[in-house]
Amino acid sequence: MVKPSWKFLLLVALAPAAALASQGAEHGDPVASVVLALTIILVAAKLGGELAVRLGQPAVLGELLVGVLLGNLRLVGYSGLDHLWADPAIDMLARLGVLVLLFEVGLESTVGQMLKVGLPSLLVASLGVITPFALGWGVGAWLLPGHGVYVHAFLGATLCATSVGISARVLKDLGRLQTPEARIILGAAVLDDVMGLVVLAVVTGMIGAAEQGASFSVASVVVIVLKATAFLVVSLFLGVRLSPRLFHLASKLHARGVLLALGLALCFLFSWLANVVGLASIVGAFAAGLILEDVHYRDFVDRGEHPLEDLIQPISAFLAPIFFVLMGLRTDLRSFALPATLGLAGALVLAAVLGKQACSLGVWGRGVDRLTVGLGMIPRGEVGLIFANVGVGLTLGGQPIIDRAIFSAVVVMVMVTTLVTPIALKFSLERGERK
Amino acid sequence: MVKPSWKFLLLVALAPAAALASQGAEHGDPVASVVLALTIILVAAKLGGELAVRLGQPAVLGELLVGVLLGNLRLVGYSGLDHLWADPAIDMLARLGVLVLLFEVGLESTVGQMLKVGLPSLLVASLGVITPFALGWGVGAWLLPGHGVYVHAFLGATLCATSVGISARVLKDLGRLQTPEARIILGAAVLDDVMGLVVLAVVTGMIGAAEQGASFSVASVVVIVLKATAFLVVSLFLGVRLSPRLFHLASKLHARGVLLALGLALCFLFSWLANVVGLASIVGAFAAGLILEDVHYRDFVDRGEHPLEDLIQPISAFLAPIFFVLMGLRTDLRSFALPATLGLAGALVLAAVLGKQACSLGVWGRGVDRLTVGLGMIPRGEVGLIFANVGVGLTLGGQPIIDRAIFSAVVVMVMVTTLVTPIALKFSLERGERK
Repeated sequence: MVKPSWKFLLLVALAPAAALASQGAEHGDPVASVVLALTIILVAAKLGGELAVRLGQPAVLGELLVGVLLGNLRLVGYSGLDHLWADPAIDMLARLGVLVLLFEVGLESTVGQMLKVGLPSLLVASLGVITPFALGWGVGAWLLPGHGVYVHAFLGATLCATSVGISARVLKDLGRLQTPEARIILGAAVLDDVMGLVVLAVVTGMIGAAEQGASFSVASVVVIVLKATAFLVVSLFLGVRLSPRLFHLASKLHARGVLLALGLALCFLFSWLANVVGLASIVGAFAAGLILEDVHYRDFVDRGEHPLEDLIQPISAFLAPIFFVLMGLRTDLRSFALPATLGLAGALVLAAVLGKQACSLGVWGRGVDRLTVGLGMIPRGEVGLIFANVGVGLTLGGQPIIDRAIFSAVVVMVMVTTLVTPIALKFSLERGERK
Repeated sequence: MVKPSWKFLLLVALAPAAALASQGAEHGDPVASVVLALTIILVAAKLGGELAVRLGQPAVLGELLVGVLLGNLRLVGYSGLDHLWADPAIDMLARLGVLVLLFEVGLESTVGQMLKVGLPSLLVASLGVITPFALGWGVGAWLLPGHGVYVHAFLGATLCATSVGISARVLKDLGRLQTPEARIILGAAVLDDVMGLVVLAVVTGMIGAAEQGASFSVASVVVIVLKATAFLVVSLFLGVRLSPRLFHLASKLHARGVLLALGLALCFLFSWLANVVGLASIVGAFAAGLILEDVHYRDFVDRGEHPLEDLIQPISAFLAPIFFVLMGLRTDLRSFALPATLGLAGALVLAAVLGKQACSLGVWGRGVDRLTVGLGMIPRGEVGLIFANVGVGLTLGGQPIIDRAIFSAVVVMVMVTTLVTPIALKFSLERGERK
């Protein structure tokens, strides 16, 4: 009975895909192309996730790979899905999806639990920024000796930040969000974002100053550090104090759906605030999730409403797969076929993976699996791409800091670190369990 | 304890609103402005809904009115929210919201239940198209004698279709979706969409033929009718037969979230199909909801998953208020202040409201409240605007069929029918209950 089910579901997925290719611009409602794309993405995500689960892997790996498949159909002559790559509506839903996912992940921990792993997280994050930066610089100096020190430094910077979405989904898929390893990884990834930002600011500032022949201002770096720190301290400490009062007051409202609306509003508000201080939006969404605790909305649950986790879960189940399928979709397999960049790409991948293994040195105490922490820090995801994009826009002596070949190598590094993490992290978690 | 809660929540809503005005384009992440807008919309929707509920009105009225308030802040000098009016991401989320809402409403009924009210629905829909068309034509002939017969016919056409979103939300807010009145209104609104489409096609075709001096082709109207009928018959009858099999097969998948993904995929697929045959997307979403019945996904519920309604509810609670707040936001109160159009607008509102009261003549049988059915058919919503927009693009002898003054009058008609329905429908439902 299994085989026909697959065929049938594939038919459901492929019929609209075929229609998409022949679709004209005749329809007035702009929602039409979006709902068709969502149909394809949702069905593909579930089929990919199913295959991964049957092979004993986290569902997110299947979502990524089915995205890679859909995104590279043009290699076999089908280009009907190519516009998904850049569709602004799908892109926005994916961005909202990863915010809601990080909010949901944040809900499963509290600020107190995160502070308990604060020192190991800080050590892990520091080592996970310094080592990849040094290794990335070294790779540049070794393979691109003609490009000058700023290019080398920038390559190091692209390896700094951790993209926590992938690891968070793997830990969630495998039911390990409550482990100390998960808390250290999530805490260190948040701190990484701050540190990566500082490194980027310093390198960018130095390049800008060199280009203009001016001296580099230390004050601007201090401002960045202060803004990011202030956001984390103020949001977490003030949030923990104000959140119970806010939910208590909100529980006096009679309208339906107040709990969900308030939870989402906080998630979105903090995402925006994080962006304002220059941090990634997902850091804000995660912080909002950390702040909220079950006891804050007991008033709602006591009168028979579902707890916030139950309300967020379907929204995250709808939107998050869009993010992961889209990340796969944007993986151009042709990047792997460029011999000029493949050497550099391979060296960057090694630097990225090995650099984050230094993180395990920051973990102490019994019962915490060091390898898991190191592996959980590997994915660079879209953060690496954003950094590389900044480099494309920077010039030194009229030449962009990051040229096409270097950018392709960074793209390959991001793809490999993203695709390899689910498998490696699952392997490590199960190894740790057997011990 | 109530007063401080309002102030506090208002502060939460207004702080980002103030920030929005001063916001530059400095932030890289395009999600930032969207999440800020979502924060404002969600908080405003709940505050508006709360106020409406406390005044004994359906929450949707509050969402509409708070939207009107936010959208007209420029009248008191604040223009920081003006860009929300046309933000493509918010627009798309609103469109998805009304689709998910209609899908959710469709889930509460079955095809069998709808067929039981098929004949009254057909009669109600027919009367609800013929009478407003005749009255709209008459208003045109009376107040715009210089504009020619095609303008009069087009005015009639803009009054035909019912926008079912408002009535569906009111019936849902008040827990009356299971009543025969609700089923007749929903069924008639779907049929209205088909008939309104035919009227628009005929009038547009005649104007196009007149402009080119050619004769009007009956065949094109036949094609439109056949496509729309085929969609309804094929989707409903084939859907009812295939849906249990599809869900049974899908229940063999091990990945999490299969039920929600499949339900949403069907909702989106049918929305797209409806659009392909030229019907409104919400007709497809509603049809998808009608097809699905609890027994289809018993396999999932038996193994401990939440029923589909519970999974869709938070998504609809998140997205649907965006649609209603946005509809309010787009209500430009200055339209009411144009004396040139106000006479025409008043006559159109009367034609729109009275025209749909003819619907009550199509209802027979005891225990069905005729007034409720007539009032439930009043809102024209975005469908009337879409029709008027088509008219703006049509020319006859170089003059647009719908000029600015006529368009403003249609906008006022849409606003008044939309805002008046929640109050009237609630009044009628409670009057019926008292009897």
